[in-house]
Amino acid sequence: MAEKKRELSGVLTPMVTPFKNDRVLFHGLIANVEKMNETGLAGYFVLGTNGEYKSLSVDERFQVLRTVVKYRAKGKGVMAGMGFESTKETIDMVLRAAGEGADMASLLMPHFFAKKMTPEVLAGYITDVADASPIPVVLYNNPSVASAVTIRPDLIDRVKEHPNVIGIKDSSSETYKQNLDAAKGKMCVLAGSAGYFLDLLKAGGNGGVLSLANVYPDACAKLYTLFREGKMQEAEALNASLVALNKEVSGSFGVAGVKAAMDLSGFCGGDPRKPLLPLSTEQLATLKASLGRSAFAQ
Amino acid sequence: MAEKKRELSGVLTPMVTPFKNDRVLFHGLIANVEKMNETGLAGYFVLGTNGEYKSLSVDERFQVLRTVVKYRAKGKGVMAGMGFESTKETIDMVLRAAGEGADMASLLMPHFFAKKMTPEVLAGYITDVADASPIPVVLYNNPSVASAVTIRPDLIDRVKEHPNVIGIKDSSSETYKQNLDAAKGKMCVLAGSAGYFLDLLKAGGNGGVLSLANVYPDACAKLYTLFREGKMQEAEALNASLVALNKEVSGSFGVAGVKAAMDLSGFCGGDPRKPLLPLSTEQLATLKASLGRSAFAQ
Amino acid sequence: MAEKKRELSGVLTPMVTPFKNDRVLFHGLIANVEKMNETGLAGYFVLGTNGEYKSLSVDERFQVLRTVVKYRAKGKGVMAGMGFESTKETIDMVLRAAGEGADMASLLMPHFFAKKMTPEVLAGYITDVADASPIPVVLYNNPSVASAVTIRPDLIDRVKEHPNVIGIKDSSSETYKQNLDAAKGKMCVLAGSAGYFLDLLKAGGNGGVLSLANVYPDACAKLYTLFREGKMQEAEALNASLVALNKEVSGSFGVAGVKAAMDLSGFCGGDPRKPLLPLSTEQLATLKASLGRSAFAQ
Amino acid sequence: MAEKKRELSGVLTPMVTPFKNDRVLFHGLIANVEKMNETGLAGYFVLGTNGEYKSLSVDERFQVLRTVVKYRAKGKGVMAGMGFESTKETIDMVLRAAGEGADMASLLMPHFFAKKMTPEVLAGYITDVADASPIPVVLYNNPSVASAVTIRPDLIDRVKEHPNVIGIKDSSSETYKQNLDAAKGKMCVLAGSAGYFLDLLKAGGNGGVLSLANVYPDACAKLYTLFREGKMQEAEALNASLVALNKEVSGSFGVAGVKAAMDLSGFCGGDPRKPLLPLSTEQLATLKASLGRSAFAQ
Repeated sequence: MAEKKRELSGVLTPMVTPFKNDRVLFHGLIANVEKMNETGLAGYFVLGTNGEYKSLSVDERFQVLRTVVKYRAKGKGVMAGMGFESTKETIDMVLRAAGEGADMASLLMPHFFAKKMTPEVLAGYITDVADASPIPVVLYNNPSVASAVTIRPDLIDRVKEHPNVIGIKDSSSETYKQNLDAAKGKMCVLAGSAGYFLDLLKAGGNGGVLSLANVYPDACAKLYTLFREGKMQEAEALNASLVALNKEVSGSFGVAGVKAAMDLSGFCGGDPRKPLLPLSTEQLATLKASLGRSAFAQ
Repeated sequence: MAEKKRELSGVLTPMVTPFKNDRVLFHGLIANVEKMNETGLAGYFVLGTNGEYKSLSVDERFQVLRTVVKYRAKGKGVMAGMGFESTKETIDMVLRAAGEGADMASLLMPHFFAKKMTPEVLAGYITDVADASPIPVVLYNNPSVASAVTIRPDLIDRVKEHPNVIGIKDSSSETYKQNLDAAKGKMCVLAGSAGYFLDLLKAGGNGGVLSLANVYPDACAKLYTLFREGKMQEAEALNASLVALNKEVSGSFGVAGVKAAMDLSGFCGGDPRKPLLPLSTEQLATLKASLGRSAFAQ
Repeated sequence: MAEKKRELSGVLTPMVTPFKNDRVLFHGLIANVEKMNETGLAGYFVLGTNGEYKSLSVDERFQVLRTVVKYRAKGKGVMAGMGFESTKETIDMVLRAAGEGADMASLLMPHFFAKKMTPEVLAGYITDVADASPIPVVLYNNPSVASAVTIRPDLIDRVKEHPNVIGIKDSSSETYKQNLDAAKGKMCVLAGSAGYFLDLLKAGGNGGVLSLANVYPDACAKLYTLFREGKMQEAEALNASLVALNKEVSGSFGVAGVKAAMDLSGFCGGDPRKPLLPLSTEQLATLKASLGRSAFAQ
Repeated sequence: MAEKKRELSGVLTPMVTPFKNDRVLFHGLIANVEKMNETGLAGYFVLGTNGEYKSLSVDERFQVLRTVVKYRAKGKGVMAGMGFESTKETIDMVLRAAGEGADMASLLMPHFFAKKMTPEVLAGYITDVADASPIPVVLYNNPSVASAVTIRPDLIDRVKEHPNVIGIKDSSSETYKQNLDAAKGKMCVLAGSAGYFLDLLKAGGNGGVLSLANVYPDACAKLYTLFREGKMQEAEALNASLVALNKEVSGSFGVAGVKAAMDLSGFCGGDPRKPLLPLSTEQLATLKASLGRSAFAQ
């Protein structure tokens, strides 16, 4: 790891934004943070895909960020999703996020003009933002929501020496290994899914941003601890459950599934914001059965 | 066409937003509008793909809209690009656009959660916005910038009877014909490219939103007039030139190409906003040669 | 009638504000205006009790007003409900309404400090507003929504000579007769309900603001014409139907009933805004039966 | 008290908004806060009935709130009166109040459509707001300004388990006892008047929001302390004086009386906002005599 870079490790929850009638349920959000404060989570990632950040107005995004910053327990970090299409707006918003108390900013790559987003162009974008930002920057690789714009080793090589680019959160099962190789020693790497979280740790990665941590924060945090303590047998067993659950919750149903599972587990998931739909009655029954079968059922 | 629906026809220019050092050149924008006011264009489409709307802050978008509304000549319509990811924000912004004097709102389909954007979901989105909007709504089909979310006949059938959904601007050469068939008699159809503008008119379409009209507004407007007057031979000849030019400008180089061609033709194109790059010296030379070869060279 | 006062007569519709998911359906509002434009209505009263004006933000109120002003047919007046609790805010808002094109302002009496709203105090309020207003002022007597603050002859006597106080809309069946006597020759008087609209006309009144005109604008306008043409037998017959219907729609179910009846009659009623509830399934069935029995059933 | 609920106790001042020529005297407001900061008050209730909140524009309300938040001493809470007629506007405004630093929001029940405000409807309103609010919510029962809409045990039972509904401020001498019984152990209860403040404390209540604290903050705070310390004889004696004074100030003259008494006691009361009138010369003389007779006369 480059000498001065801030380390990034452990499990962060990609916080959902609970809605009812298209309004943010701030009390529910606070209740979620307060419960998660009691767990071994390393912190919170707000305004990401699970947070439906593109469905929030800019003012709403900062209300959400401000709320999580205010209620998070001491020692828990807050990473704010701040990927906008233009360099200028990204920098303006990262500055505002820093002012609101975010510890780090996560950058989804610009993708509206996807074909023009070459590694050179993206490296320029990342460098401009990292230069201007008062808080460390974490790359966010998620081709499935970014019109297939993908962060690969050729891009990582261009930016990994930048002292303010401290990590990458990789939500692609196809790239995380090569990106881990490219980043090693220069940038932290976080798994963007429980599906390969343990695999990434074993390969030398640093942590994970796991949608499942919205539902099972303790289990997700425990998996990280077991790994760090070298209790690999227990870790593998727990991991098997989490991988299966992750497929049934987030894999099958996306954000709406994560939210429904939260509502079934004592958290406040709420509805997705329209036009995204909540689970149908049938989907909800399937989800309930999945959760009931799981090792975490009470 | 359904009795009370507002008609939409002729050529609209998808206005570029000129930048310099990442700042909007409002004086250049005004100059463009004033020149185009002297042509046979039907109006202006602001805040679309060519306008790099996703690279503007929300406030900047309304500054641009307000400027075009203020300077457009009497009789020229203004359509505002207002596609946001959530139903709520789209409605809020359409209301604001109506208050600023936009005559119509264009809706790019939500696409951040592309896999969930089924025809049912999109029909709900469109209907909710059209119900709430004080100005008519025009669908905008552009899968290339919308993570492949595509408007097809099954969606058109769901919304075409709505009295406030008056048209579709189709920027996909693969779907415009079937969408024209589906929409016929219920919604106007505009070509999103000079590449198939005349073909669409011949098939019964109503007009076009042509990036080339930023560079050659007179020629684009003339093509429409020739078609309406039944001068098909002249129309075909002019069309051939425009199709070729369109390929060399917008086709090869995208928004940056359109902007460079404008600068070469007496308009103010300006730079794209970062991270999108302006043409390289080589690309610029190629473009210059293309324009020089064209029938419109001075 | 005092020499210079603007006259106020005929039937005005107290426009509802249609909502869906707590958002204003502006397209529905426009459709309502366009349909009513084809009738013999004298104009529109926006932002009154039926318009749920207190459930709208101030900005929303002016969006509604602006919309009705823009779409109303030539010759149809627009009266804007502008009763606020303080003299200052009422004047500020009346000025804004005049700027948006309202022809008249209607003043519900301040009532938050109901016990202090003596005739002297209210006369001061009315006079201050009328002095400052560029548009004529119409008093609005509606003790049922104004904490029992009631306009009576002693108040009318204090303000009726003011050249900018041109009328009163009386929504109280208990006071309209004495108020008519007090106002006669000095201020126009409009019935605030179909329940005593014809009675008021016969007693020398000038017109009505009838919630039923949202559902049956033609019939309401016709009643006024019949009366003016002296066709009293026809007028009485029509009146009997309207009085009965009014009791079953507005009387039993209030604004929610008016809105549901509109939806059943080809207008856009939409939902009330929360916490006000739409009709229950049972109530809706009762309403349907009432409308079906009526002389206006198709 | 439910485990996680924030407690609410002691005496809060329902801050008046001083006016002169219908303008807010912000300097006077600041002076009042600074004096009260030196007393044993628990905090400030801004934008309530004594604050004439319905006579302020929305922007003025937030200017007042911001001012009190800025100048209040550390440890003194700020509760903001945020009851609007619609669920939507209430939530929008509560979010804005939280952003301005309010610690709690107080909700006067919607009452424009008083007859429709059943316990079910009001429970829905309260729950929707509490879910969406980032700050705790306190119910405000004041039928005398709310068109007789009254909070009773049947409503309290519906909302008292909500973790974000932390209390009720009861300004009705007729209901506070039954409401206290219903709320006990689940919600804090504050007396809305000095008339029954001590009685409520003795019955297990938690504090009071006393208009008299605008004039005699020390005495009001001392009464609470005496009670807490079990010095009941002293408490009863002080209470007798306060009850009598309260009748003569607020009871006889309302907000105008409180303001005049403040001006006579070294605070800045200022005028009420028109059309509400200041005391007449005679009333002022009566008030002066009352204050002079009191135990607190200097």
